[in-house]
Amino acid sequence: MSDLQSIGIKSEKRMTPGHPMVVGHINQDVTHGPQLLFYGHYDVQPVDPLELWHSDPFAPEIQDTDKGKVIRGRGSSDDKGQLMTFVEACRAYAHIEGALPCRITFLFEGEEESGSPSLVPFMTENAKELTADIALICDTTMVAPGVPSIASQLRGMVKDEFTIHGPKIDLHSGHYGGPALNPLREVSKIIASFHDSTGRVAVDGFYDGVEEVPADLLRQWESCGFDEATYLSDVGMSQAHGEAGYSALVQQWARPTLEVNGLWGGYQGAGSKTVIPAEAHCKITCRLVGDMDPSHVRNQVRAHVEAQLSPDASVSWDNDLEGAPASVMDTTRPEFEIARAALSDEWNREAVFAGMGGSIPIAGYFKEILGMESMLVGFAQEDDAIHSPNEKYNVESFHKGMRSWARILHKLTE
Amino acid sequence: MSDLQSIGIKSEKRMTPGHPMVVGHINQDVTHGPQLLFYGHYDVQPVDPLELWHSDPFAPEIQDTDKGKVIRGRGSSDDKGQLMTFVEACRAYAHIEGALPCRITFLFEGEEESGSPSLVPFMTENAKELTADIALICDTTMVAPGVPSIASQLRGMVKDEFTIHGPKIDLHSGHYGGPALNPLREVSKIIASFHDSTGRVAVDGFYDGVEEVPADLLRQWESCGFDEATYLSDVGMSQAHGEAGYSALVQQWARPTLEVNGLWGGYQGAGSKTVIPAEAHCKITCRLVGDMDPSHVRNQVRAHVEAQLSPDASVSWDNDLEGAPASVMDTTRPEFEIARAALSDEWNREAVFAGMGGSIPIAGYFKEILGMESMLVGFAQEDDAIHSPNEKYNVESFHKGMRSWARILHKLTE
Repeated sequence: MSDLQSIGIKSEKRMTPGHPMVVGHINQDVTHGPQLLFYGHYDVQPVDPLELWHSDPFAPEIQDTDKGKVIRGRGSSDDKGQLMTFVEACRAYAHIEGALPCRITFLFEGEEESGSPSLVPFMTENAKELTADIALICDTTMVAPGVPSIASQLRGMVKDEFTIHGPKIDLHSGHYGGPALNPLREVSKIIASFHDSTGRVAVDGFYDGVEEVPADLLRQWESCGFDEATYLSDVGMSQAHGEAGYSALVQQWARPTLEVNGLWGGYQGAGSKTVIPAEAHCKITCRLVGDMDPSHVRNQVRAHVEAQLSPDASVSWDNDLEGAPASVMDTTRPEFEIARAALSDEWNREAVFAGMGGSIPIAGYFKEILGMESMLVGFAQEDDAIHSPNEKYNVESFHKGMRSWARILHKLTE
Repeated sequence: MSDLQSIGIKSEKRMTPGHPMVVGHINQDVTHGPQLLFYGHYDVQPVDPLELWHSDPFAPEIQDTDKGKVIRGRGSSDDKGQLMTFVEACRAYAHIEGALPCRITFLFEGEEESGSPSLVPFMTENAKELTADIALICDTTMVAPGVPSIASQLRGMVKDEFTIHGPKIDLHSGHYGGPALNPLREVSKIIASFHDSTGRVAVDGFYDGVEEVPADLLRQWESCGFDEATYLSDVGMSQAHGEAGYSALVQQWARPTLEVNGLWGGYQGAGSKTVIPAEAHCKITCRLVGDMDPSHVRNQVRAHVEAQLSPDASVSWDNDLEGAPASVMDTTRPEFEIARAALSDEWNREAVFAGMGGSIPIAGYFKEILGMESMLVGFAQEDDAIHSPNEKYNVESFHKGMRSWARILHKLTE
């Protein structure tokens, strides 16, 4: 907030039932030119496992690496670092030109990593204040190092969590091993049943609303500079493990997933404990594409799990987790071509419209609640380790990101 | 130790590289009559999950329940409570008769729940001091409430733990969901492959050394008072979930198992984290019967896991976990019939020779290292919740257990 205020942006902390929003305004009385809203989020994912960090996750530092200088720390990429590219672009622009070129609203939230529960009510209550001609969002990745990228589609998401209940109490595997139903085996059987041997999700009705990627879009993607071999080998993989018959790029951008993000039960300490636990727990997320309906997906997955249960096993669900459909951007709007030209100038490489595997539900909310399109431009790299230990943001992304936004602001208001 | 000393037993703490042994002697200069060794263990399983305890696990208290008075606390049954039945029997015997009736050595260890790593070296170093005519062990369960039981066979055990390694780092399920190999799915697939649809272990060679229970022994077991319906319903089960075609009793006493005791990976906190973790972890134990060889079982299970691995997945093993074969007692020795008569007198019900599903490797070590048979008599109940929250020991087990040992001591030395 004080960063915004130091550029002359009238900004304040606005309370919500959860973490507060930071809202800022500049040139509120300017009526000509485009009106922009810039969105970012200041919250971050948990840092665990903390023991795998080589430096304090909350004491960011600049480090030299084989691939150049990086800013190391939790949120350096997702999304504090990316957010600051826009703020610092505004500072530089105002410093050089004397003032920012158009009316801009700033909206920074603190609950993006936990499903933005306060965002929709806040937007609904403050719709008039927040609505602009277009929203700019800096929370995405470049398709390859040096290739400036504008998101043309994002996957949606369904989150869910279930607990398998077996015996009434934890049992001793000497007294009950054999006759006992073991929830750890039960949950494993269920997870193993989620996919068939080709990597396709085996949940009935899961693919309702999924279309194949049109041939012309597929050709564009194939020439966007995405390097499948590097993308895979960067994380220690020799091949794509998703649905057979699709490239890693299509698996990531245009195919839905059912992924297990957490799994636990029984004894996790040192040594051995001969326990058959009463419960096992599983956290899942599905990434959605096309017209997949989050509620339908949730219902079908839950029905699939219930259908796998052995006698004496039962399942309970966490009903507090949300879902959001996939988004497709209207890249025919003039702002997209303007931004593409500005990015191409800054990076000396043609900018691309790219699919994105991640989910940024805010774009859907802006459209649904404020009737506002979003343009997502980001400078993160696949190897930034967002949500992982030792997250980083390239200093080049930070510098060129700032310069990119300054160019975009300039061209949008020429 | 002070409990032993207060009965006039010369006892001391003996150091080992791990937890110390407590060793006591009485009537060391008596050369007539049998020489007995009494074994118990003073260590207990971890108490977690602590939040499920309704009282302090380490502040034992006597509580009234529907099924009578119980001693509630960690170790009240396994094995502090059981161990004390013998100690208090000695106290009462010495008080009434003026002295204990024969030479008795006491050996209490503190590492039984963690595989007794110091026991074998200690026994080897002190073989002469510890060898007796027979070992008495109080660490087993009664086959049904009120049915005094002497163990005729015990299952062996192999413990193992593995980690599945997938991506080099934790991944974001937006950027990598689809193409990524997910170790949580990998470990689930492996666990699901451990058993076939009839509940039989599907590991090649796993059943080498397993024999069917002889028909006459099976008939004895069928009339031993074991109540399958209560055994199952006590823990919320309506049926036995082990190998098809075997009763719950046979599944527990005479069939081997491959059980998962701990399983974990990814995010376990509140809410959701869109992570594809780099690793997944699994703790297993196998219960062994007949002539199954622990090393062979370990090798076959490991080979099975390696054979299931997807490309880019690897596995590492904990090599610090032990194994022990099954034990079959020599119930033709006169002490067994003497003890059976003494127990029948005390409990007003014919005592039985029963199989046991648990593993007490000490019986195997006594035989192997000291050439000494063991007789296992215990007064625990299936519903004691040993290794679980709210462990208890019936006050009746404690009282009648003490009286039983006093009767056995008396009859053995008549």
